[in-house]
Amino acid sequence: MSIQSAIAELSLVLGDRLSSAKPDLELHGQSETHFTTMPPDAVAYPENTDEVSKIVRICAAQDCPVIGWGAGTSLEGHTSAFRGGVCVDFSRMNKVLVVNAEDMDVVVQPGITREDLNTDLRATGLFFPVDPGANASIGGMAATRASGTTAVRYGTMRDNVRALEVVLADGRIIRTGSRARKSSAGYDLTSLFVGSEGTLGLITELTLKLQGQPEAVASAICAFDAIEDAVNTVITTIQMGIPMARIEFVDSATATAFNIYAGANMPEVPHLLVEFHGSDTSASEDARRFGEIVDDMGGKGFEWSTKAEDRRALWAMRHNAYYACLALRRGATALVTDICVPISRLAEAIEETRADITNSSIPGPILGHVGDGNFHAILLVEPGNTKELEVAKDLSHRMAERALRLGGTITGEHGVGMGKLDYMQAEHGDGWAVMGDIKRSLDPKNIMNPGKVLKLN
Amino acid sequence: MSIQSAIAELSLVLGDRLSSAKPDLELHGQSETHFTTMPPDAVAYPENTDEVSKIVRICAAQDCPVIGWGAGTSLEGHTSAFRGGVCVDFSRMNKVLVVNAEDMDVVVQPGITREDLNTDLRATGLFFPVDPGANASIGGMAATRASGTTAVRYGTMRDNVRALEVVLADGRIIRTGSRARKSSAGYDLTSLFVGSEGTLGLITELTLKLQGQPEAVASAICAFDAIEDAVNTVITTIQMGIPMARIEFVDSATATAFNIYAGANMPEVPHLLVEFHGSDTSASEDARRFGEIVDDMGGKGFEWSTKAEDRRALWAMRHNAYYACLALRRGATALVTDICVPISRLAEAIEETRADITNSSIPGPILGHVGDGNFHAILLVEPGNTKELEVAKDLSHRMAERALRLGGTITGEHGVGMGKLDYMQAEHGDGWAVMGDIKRSLDPKNIMNPGKVLKLN
Repeated sequence: MSIQSAIAELSLVLGDRLSSAKPDLELHGQSETHFTTMPPDAVAYPENTDEVSKIVRICAAQDCPVIGWGAGTSLEGHTSAFRGGVCVDFSRMNKVLVVNAEDMDVVVQPGITREDLNTDLRATGLFFPVDPGANASIGGMAATRASGTTAVRYGTMRDNVRALEVVLADGRIIRTGSRARKSSAGYDLTSLFVGSEGTLGLITELTLKLQGQPEAVASAICAFDAIEDAVNTVITTIQMGIPMARIEFVDSATATAFNIYAGANMPEVPHLLVEFHGSDTSASEDARRFGEIVDDMGGKGFEWSTKAEDRRALWAMRHNAYYACLALRRGATALVTDICVPISRLAEAIEETRADITNSSIPGPILGHVGDGNFHAILLVEPGNTKELEVAKDLSHRMAERALRLGGTITGEHGVGMGKLDYMQAEHGDGWAVMGDIKRSLDPKNIMNPGKVLKLN
Repeated sequence: MSIQSAIAELSLVLGDRLSSAKPDLELHGQSETHFTTMPPDAVAYPENTDEVSKIVRICAAQDCPVIGWGAGTSLEGHTSAFRGGVCVDFSRMNKVLVVNAEDMDVVVQPGITREDLNTDLRATGLFFPVDPGANASIGGMAATRASGTTAVRYGTMRDNVRALEVVLADGRIIRTGSRARKSSAGYDLTSLFVGSEGTLGLITELTLKLQGQPEAVASAICAFDAIEDAVNTVITTIQMGIPMARIEFVDSATATAFNIYAGANMPEVPHLLVEFHGSDTSASEDARRFGEIVDDMGGKGFEWSTKAEDRRALWAMRHNAYYACLALRRGATALVTDICVPISRLAEAIEETRADITNSSIPGPILGHVGDGNFHAILLVEPGNTKELEVAKDLSHRMAERALRLGGTITGEHGVGMGKLDYMQAEHGDGWAVMGDIKRSLDPKNIMNPGKVLKLN
């Protein structure tokens, strides 16, 4: 039993859709962030579920690791093949299979990216709302339980996947959930596979909830003197039931980055970036009510606009925040943190983090999805500078501890991968052992993305 | 190892909070519906999580079944002790532990009922929205993934439980989730335990999402000539993004039942009962837009009201629908069905079911949560009349098959219990085997509510 025997068998099945070319291996071993490149031994490009099942069966027989690959936008080393094995690249399984407009759902293959999906859906009047910023694949987003700027209104991938087709670790193909909007028929396997990071099986098809494109969209930006004022604005807005579509926080360092990278003209103080979806009447009423809260909290410069170009500019700037922050330090790489706390503890969490970074030797703008209590510090380090990487890891370590101390979680949306493994015991206690029990029962050979989410010998 | 040894040990721990009195056993072996009484051997009344843990440890050592009990409102025989064992009655664990108003969450013990919880919350301006009609316990609602009239707006228990404390089958106590609004930290154990019907562990604490009490509530009722017109009204309403808080269907037979039982004065045709939550402006705009759709679809008698007394009367009538339907036939007992289909197939599903019941020898009003595609037939049978029970089971069987044929699920909200076991293989295929693997890994002795959800050996 060996990886090489698996590869030999796989090449009979896949022909030139199994690649061992070095550039391909390198590409599939790379990370968007600070993890070192750990290439797989081969990359498979299946075209349908049956092929995925065959790949897994062959790998299972040879004890060969199997690692799923969507668009490579993971920030936590999810796709690193540190034990080698076969990377299953879903780029050829990227079709929209069925749009059910009356039911407001769509069936897709995992390799489609969220931007391609929404382009495809444009004529239907529907859209898929989850938006992690990066143009990630839908399969990858489900595997990591991704979310992003719109989760405050539409939820995360947990809330937006209705059903899955999954290839299990022994090659069996199962379907979880259905197109019904709810069910009480047994264990919620859909929710188990969403967020399992490819460690329990490979997602080969997804049924997603869709939303109607809003009749009106209004967006706005406003400035605050203090982080706490911005956060209190968010808390009050949510308590008043104003249905924000997006409510994003950026700190003063991020505002600086926007000014430099995107030619923005923002005062270098904390800001909220917001969006309202609704009818003409409701979107303006929401914007008006939000404006009153901003005034009460001492916010400044609040103006809202329903112009598409204003909105696009605003969210393009937000979506490029990662690159804007990277550009603050020429040639830098980043360690991106991702904690999420109860919103009542958010101001405290951000302020402590801000102070900790300011006292360190490296820059680290902070921004986040404050409607969810989720924020990121983008810790900028010189590539190869191990001392700086240690500083970044220490800051990240203290953020994780802070999240747990404040009743939150070590990762709001990026997942565990390899990067957050060391905090799983602290967050879950014996619950982590339960995850291990589930993993062992569904993947007894530990071939599915080994070493991620869990530490099994 | 025996149940009797477990009971002897438990009585040392619990004293008079362990009951073997016959009326107590009978009460805890009864079902709201057609299942025969199957009493446990003893009923335990723990007062805290540590006691629950001790109970489970003792039972585990003696291979004694452990069955959770909330308010006894299950419709699928969830609490039947058909192998005997110990019923864990959570009525003494019924406290609100913490209200976090800023985070809009609440921590409760499982035995509190939803009505008591909302009474407790009244002064906070917040409420817990999930409303299955019956005054069920929150723990039981989570265990069966309950939903009800408000799921169309606020989701089911799946969507409204943030975190759990669970006693596992070996007595270990774990916490799943956190008070953060989202997380990507590993497998979603919260979703795994929600809907697991006490077969994987006992829920001893829940953190629930709350909603702000709406500023304005408008309710309405309207009549339709045909089921299809009512369903098309629902589909259009959802597609237009009108955020219905409730949208309920009743058929002509249910209207008759309301007229008799509640003194309503409804034309005996299909109806929709609806509710809108929002600001004064948005609730009236929603009601106005909905009224336009009703007109387009040929609906009649649409009038909306923001008066609390009108609303209370409407929903009291809806909540008592089960008893109103039972009263259609003096002394009857009911087999209550519960299928859920994609909403595009709903009219077809209801019409086929209506025709099938009409052609049978027993009455069966139909009503349901049409915004979710979920409906029930309340099949009325004479107690002890095995021939009629067979007719009802046949109708129910065909409903389950219909649900699966139309891409839906055999249970939208009542759960599997014993009543839906025979359809699990058809709905889930190998997915049911995966549920079995999970069950075996977390409860290898099969002591937690054995015989529900799964058929093991």
